[in-house]
Amino acid sequence: MTTDFTATRDAFVLPEGMIYLDGNSLGPLPKAAAARVAQTVTAEWGQMLITGWNKAGWMDQPARVGDRIARLIGAEPGTVVMGDTLSIKVYQALASALAMNPARRVILSDSGNFPSDMYMAEGLCRTLGADYELRVVEPEAVLDAIDETIAVTLITEIDYRTGRRHDMAAITSRAHQKGALTIWDLAHSAGALPVHLAKVGADFAVGCTYKYLNSGPGGPAFIYVAPRHAETARPALSGWLGHESPFAFDLAYRPGRGIERMRVGTPPVLQLAALEAALDVWDNVDLADLRAASLSLTDQFIAGVEAACPDLALATPRDHDRRGSQVSFRHPQGYAIMQAMIARGVIGDFRAPDILRFGFTPLFIGAADVAKAVDILAEVMANRLWDRPEYHARAKVT
Amino acid sequence: MTTDFTATRDAFVLPEGMIYLDGNSLGPLPKAAAARVAQTVTAEWGQMLITGWNKAGWMDQPARVGDRIARLIGAEPGTVVMGDTLSIKVYQALASALAMNPARRVILSDSGNFPSDMYMAEGLCRTLGADYELRVVEPEAVLDAIDETIAVTLITEIDYRTGRRHDMAAITSRAHQKGALTIWDLAHSAGALPVHLAKVGADFAVGCTYKYLNSGPGGPAFIYVAPRHAETARPALSGWLGHESPFAFDLAYRPGRGIERMRVGTPPVLQLAALEAALDVWDNVDLADLRAASLSLTDQFIAGVEAACPDLALATPRDHDRRGSQVSFRHPQGYAIMQAMIARGVIGDFRAPDILRFGFTPLFIGAADVAKAVDILAEVMANRLWDRPEYHARAKVT
Repeated sequence: MTTDFTATRDAFVLPEGMIYLDGNSLGPLPKAAAARVAQTVTAEWGQMLITGWNKAGWMDQPARVGDRIARLIGAEPGTVVMGDTLSIKVYQALASALAMNPARRVILSDSGNFPSDMYMAEGLCRTLGADYELRVVEPEAVLDAIDETIAVTLITEIDYRTGRRHDMAAITSRAHQKGALTIWDLAHSAGALPVHLAKVGADFAVGCTYKYLNSGPGGPAFIYVAPRHAETARPALSGWLGHESPFAFDLAYRPGRGIERMRVGTPPVLQLAALEAALDVWDNVDLADLRAASLSLTDQFIAGVEAACPDLALATPRDHDRRGSQVSFRHPQGYAIMQAMIARGVIGDFRAPDILRFGFTPLFIGAADVAKAVDILAEVMANRLWDRPEYHARAKVT
Repeated sequence: MTTDFTATRDAFVLPEGMIYLDGNSLGPLPKAAAARVAQTVTAEWGQMLITGWNKAGWMDQPARVGDRIARLIGAEPGTVVMGDTLSIKVYQALASALAMNPARRVILSDSGNFPSDMYMAEGLCRTLGADYELRVVEPEAVLDAIDETIAVTLITEIDYRTGRRHDMAAITSRAHQKGALTIWDLAHSAGALPVHLAKVGADFAVGCTYKYLNSGPGGPAFIYVAPRHAETARPALSGWLGHESPFAFDLAYRPGRGIERMRVGTPPVLQLAALEAALDVWDNVDLADLRAASLSLTDQFIAGVEAACPDLALATPRDHDRRGSQVSFRHPQGYAIMQAMIARGVIGDFRAPDILRFGFTPLFIGAADVAKAVDILAEVMANRLWDRPEYHARAKVT
């Protein structure tokens, strides 16, 4: 199929006059999601009440939706389940992996990883006891740092600040050579570019859905467990819906079949309804087309900004293979510059200490948007429009 | 104030002809929740996109809503925060309590506790290492089992099957005498009867909101930490929104102030919107009135069923002080009896192996409903209406 990006754009609510380059943080509302959520609230919860668990299929939704995510990340059917938040899923994957590699004590990560992944790893190490260790190296040093001491790597494929992309195949291969397991955080990968979990032989993967997958604020996370590990992985967070037979109400835990054991508590049905509607958009998207369009947009933005804004330093790799679907520039006044952009209808975001971050999401962003965003950024920089007091007041969420 | 239960009943969507005695499993839809969720989806997510985190107050919502729950469970302001599922919050509370009582290794619970609490405790013990232990006694033996070996008690106030109520003040007091901490699971207490966490001196409490608080399927959980522990408790699940400064993106974890540290990942904004609307109903409810009405309804149901259905054995305590807001009867054909009731518009549920469970929620259930439910149950039992094949087919969720 050839992806029709005019059709996908039409599937979203995009406020008049706004150029939304922040779909890498929170995707926009798919038009179908509003109706789907309303139906779940009114026709399912309202009319079916408790019977919705069976009649409306709420109980099977985490696995059913997981299978639709699986297609987007190159995972086998029946290997992905939805629930909780990405941080919780990081903890589950880490605890499972460490238990499967009991002679080793080191989690390897890199300083470009999202901090919450680090915090969860720290919390798990503290819980496991003194000899467990989170080892953090520079992103460029990851490959060489994988040695026989590493139990598991915890790496985010795409750096949330710079858009720098790790080589998933190389790191996974090296990890396996050295007897380590791998956990891939796909927060900025799922829906951003093709991912090939089965092909590279990944062990675990986790990700969120409210970014490129457009599930809405607080949409549920996903977890992938490779089929070869599915019956041996033991989630430390062993909740009743991950039990082999939840409604037997046994007092002793027995892990559920395969990926089902990674479920914990009652699934967030309203958020899952929004996600299901958001995934409909993806049914007509070829990920190779998406990637080609994304690279074209990011190339265009880099070229335009570098030509017009000499004070901004590119933080994103120029090499296509090493780039995700965002472009970041550094500037000491990054926060105020972004506020000036937002005031002019171009929505990106700022990441401390100095990163201006712009996400390029071909489902709803096109070349004309990029051209306009470049013009506005050029105007802000040329006229030092950021140098106004109102752009320097800090909001709670930046 | 005197609670107007006609007004609260009118606040809910109740399908014509249905007597809903399952609000202890999933509360019905508050009329205001449909509009509130639609507004959050369309006006907030749809129009504000990423700026909703500040403009619509999404980021502060877990604490803001937590304060409204606090009033209903006798907790101090600023001691409750929303997020995740009840199982996850059990793990957080347990991990915090064990770390605060490091010389001891035993979690005490009872066989009437909800299985997921046990599973989470098991998972935590396994993660912590061999010498940690979950000790399970009969509900009646809890008080005597609290000795100097117990690090923390993990007790659900109201038994999910029988409605039997523990003496929270006595257990908390005994635990403190013996140097143990307490975690109270309020799944069947919050919104069911008055709870006095501060008054009894509870250390931790957790609960869900989709039962008596009517937040909808998969609504978020809450966690309470007593003010005296708020700055020392360390959540094992240390996510970025529990960090002192989430948007500094530091690589090292520093726990946030007080209860904020119990936050983990991105909050489920759509589910929280439904919960906020559901809590509006509670603004005009006096919990003493609620309790009086609940006891009147459960007394009426017990008397009616015992008079009409000699084959059903009461599983719920007759003593008001030892009863929650549900009534359960035992019968070997419990599953089929409940299916026959459901087919006749009386919705309760079944809990293996033999429990018929009926929840009484004065916000929307009155004496006329109870009388009708008794009549229908009497008819089902007198005419052995449950003895039809269609009532014996098992659904996934029972």
